[in-house]
Amino acid sequence: MSGQTDNIAIFGPGLMGGSLLMALRQRSPQTHLRVWGRRPEALAELQHRGLADACSTDAAEVARGADLAVLCVPVDQLLATARAAAPGIAPGCVVTDVGSVKGTVVTELEELFPVPGNFVGSHPMCGSEASGLAAARADLYENALCVITPTGVSRPEATQRSENFWKSVGCRVARMTPAAHDRAAALVSHVPHVAAAALVALLETESAETAAMCAGGFRDTTRVASGSPELWAAILCQNRAETERGLEKLSAVLDSFKAAVKANDRLRITALLAQAREARRAITPDS
Amino acid sequence: MSGQTDNIAIFGPGLMGGSLLMALRQRSPQTHLRVWGRRPEALAELQHRGLADACSTDAAEVARGADLAVLCVPVDQLLATARAAAPGIAPGCVVTDVGSVKGTVVTELEELFPVPGNFVGSHPMCGSEASGLAAARADLYENALCVITPTGVSRPEATQRSENFWKSVGCRVARMTPAAHDRAAALVSHVPHVAAAALVALLETESAETAAMCAGGFRDTTRVASGSPELWAAILCQNRAETERGLEKLSAVLDSFKAAVKANDRLRITALLAQAREARRAITPDS
Repeated sequence: MSGQTDNIAIFGPGLMGGSLLMALRQRSPQTHLRVWGRRPEALAELQHRGLADACSTDAAEVARGADLAVLCVPVDQLLATARAAAPGIAPGCVVTDVGSVKGTVVTELEELFPVPGNFVGSHPMCGSEASGLAAARADLYENALCVITPTGVSRPEATQRSENFWKSVGCRVARMTPAAHDRAAALVSHVPHVAAAALVALLETESAETAAMCAGGFRDTTRVASGSPELWAAILCQNRAETERGLEKLSAVLDSFKAAVKANDRLRITALLAQAREARRAITPDS
Repeated sequence: MSGQTDNIAIFGPGLMGGSLLMALRQRSPQTHLRVWGRRPEALAELQHRGLADACSTDAAEVARGADLAVLCVPVDQLLATARAAAPGIAPGCVVTDVGSVKGTVVTELEELFPVPGNFVGSHPMCGSEASGLAAARADLYENALCVITPTGVSRPEATQRSENFWKSVGCRVARMTPAAHDRAAALVSHVPHVAAAALVALLETESAETAAMCAGGFRDTTRVASGSPELWAAILCQNRAETERGLEKLSAVLDSFKAAVKANDRLRITALLAQAREARRAITPDS
C-alpha cells in the first residue's frame, strides 16, 4: 500500500460492515473511515464509538474521495447501493463487496463504475446467523477465508488492492471465478442452509414432547436456520441455478441412504457414514 | 431411595457408562459400583482411577448383587450383553439401558430378566460424536433430558427407581411410550444425522478449493457426521421404519424449497425460512 493515508468507504454498518470498521480501527488506526448507512441513528452510534471519521446517508457523498469502497449490504441491495454510490466513485477508486453470491452480481456491478476493471467481487466467509451492528466484532475476519473473484475485465492492480485489503483485516484469501465460487458456495453454504431449515420444518407440527427432545446435535445441525429469512431468500434466489443443482444432488444422496435403511443394509449404511466421516475429517480437520 | 448402600452395575465403560461412573462417584460417593467391560485394560484403568469397586469381563458376575443394572453398550450389543448378564440379575434388580432406539429393544429385553416388569428402557439424550472412556465427563448428564419408556409390563416401582436414578446424575426426565420415543428420536436425531452425512457426501468429489470454503456454518451443520459409523448404522437399522418415514418427510420439504427456488419465488422462500426460524426459536430458545 502507498505511504498516503488510506481513505476507505464502507457501505452498510451491519455485522459485516461494522466488523470491518472495528478491525480497521484496531489494525490500521490511521485509515480515514467514511460510512454510508440508511439510518442516521446507526451512523450517530458509529461516530460516538469512534468507528467512523465521516458519515452520511448520501452514498455518493460517502464515496467521494475514497480510494477503496466496500459494499457491505445484503446481496439484494447491492445493485441499488452501488448505483447510489457510483456518481461519487473516483476513476481510481477500487470497489469491492461482501456478497454471498458472485456470478450475475459481479457482471452487473462492473458496469456501474467509471472504470469497470476497478470493481473486484469478494466474499469473506465469516457471516453467521447473527446480524446487525450489535453482533459486529473486531476479530470477525481473523483467519476467515475471503474468496476474491476477479474476471477478465478486472485490473490486476485492483485485484491486488482488494486482496491486500482483506489480508489487512486478518483474512486468508483465495481467488476463484465468479461461477466457480457460486457452485462451491451452493454446496458448502446455500444447500446446507436449506437442509437445516428443512430439518426444523419437520418438527413444526410435532408435539412439545418431541421438541423437548432436541439436544446439542439438533441445535448444531440447525443453527444456521436462525439466520435472516430475507437475506437468505435473496441469496438462494441470486444463486438459484447452483442451489437447485445442489438440492438435487442432496436428494439423490438422501435417497441412497433411504434405500439402504429400507433394505436394512447395515454394511451399506456403515460404508456411507464412514465415507462421510472421512470426507469431513479431510475438510474440517480441526473439528 | 432406601437407607441401604446402593449397588449399581454398569455394563460398558464408554462415553455413556464412563460418564455415569464419574457422575455417581461425585454425587453418590457411598454407592458401590460394579463394572463390566470387554477389555481388561479398560477395567484396570477404571479401578486405577477409583471409578469402580469391582470389575469383571464376566457379565453375570458383575450383575450379581446389584440392585440396579444399567446397560451402556451400543444398541446392537444390548441384547447380547443383556443375555450374558441375565443369569446374575436378581429378581429385585431394576434394569435399564441408554439405547437410542427403544421399540423392539424394550420388548426383547423385557423377556430376558427374571421379573420382566423390572426392566424399564431409558434414553439419556446426551450422546455426542465423541465416544469411549477418554471422552467421558462427570457432567455429561447434567441437565440432559432422559426419556424413560415404561410399557404395560413395567412395574411402577421399577419405573420410579429408574427415574430417580437418572435424576440422581443430573438428568431431567420425561416418560414416553417406546413407539412415541422412536418416532420423535427419528425426527430430532436420526434423520438430522443422515442429513449431516449427506451434506458432507456432496463434497466428496469436489476440489480442495471448494472444501477450503467450508466455514463455521458448515462445521456446525455437519458436526454429528463425525460420529461412529458402526453405532449410527445400528441405530438407523433398529429404527428403520421411523427413519425411513422421516427421510421421506425431509425429501418432501426439500422439494418445496427446490420448487420455490426454481420458480425464483422469493416471497415463498422467505416464508418457508421464516417459519423454520420461528419453529427453531420455539424449540431451542437459548441458541
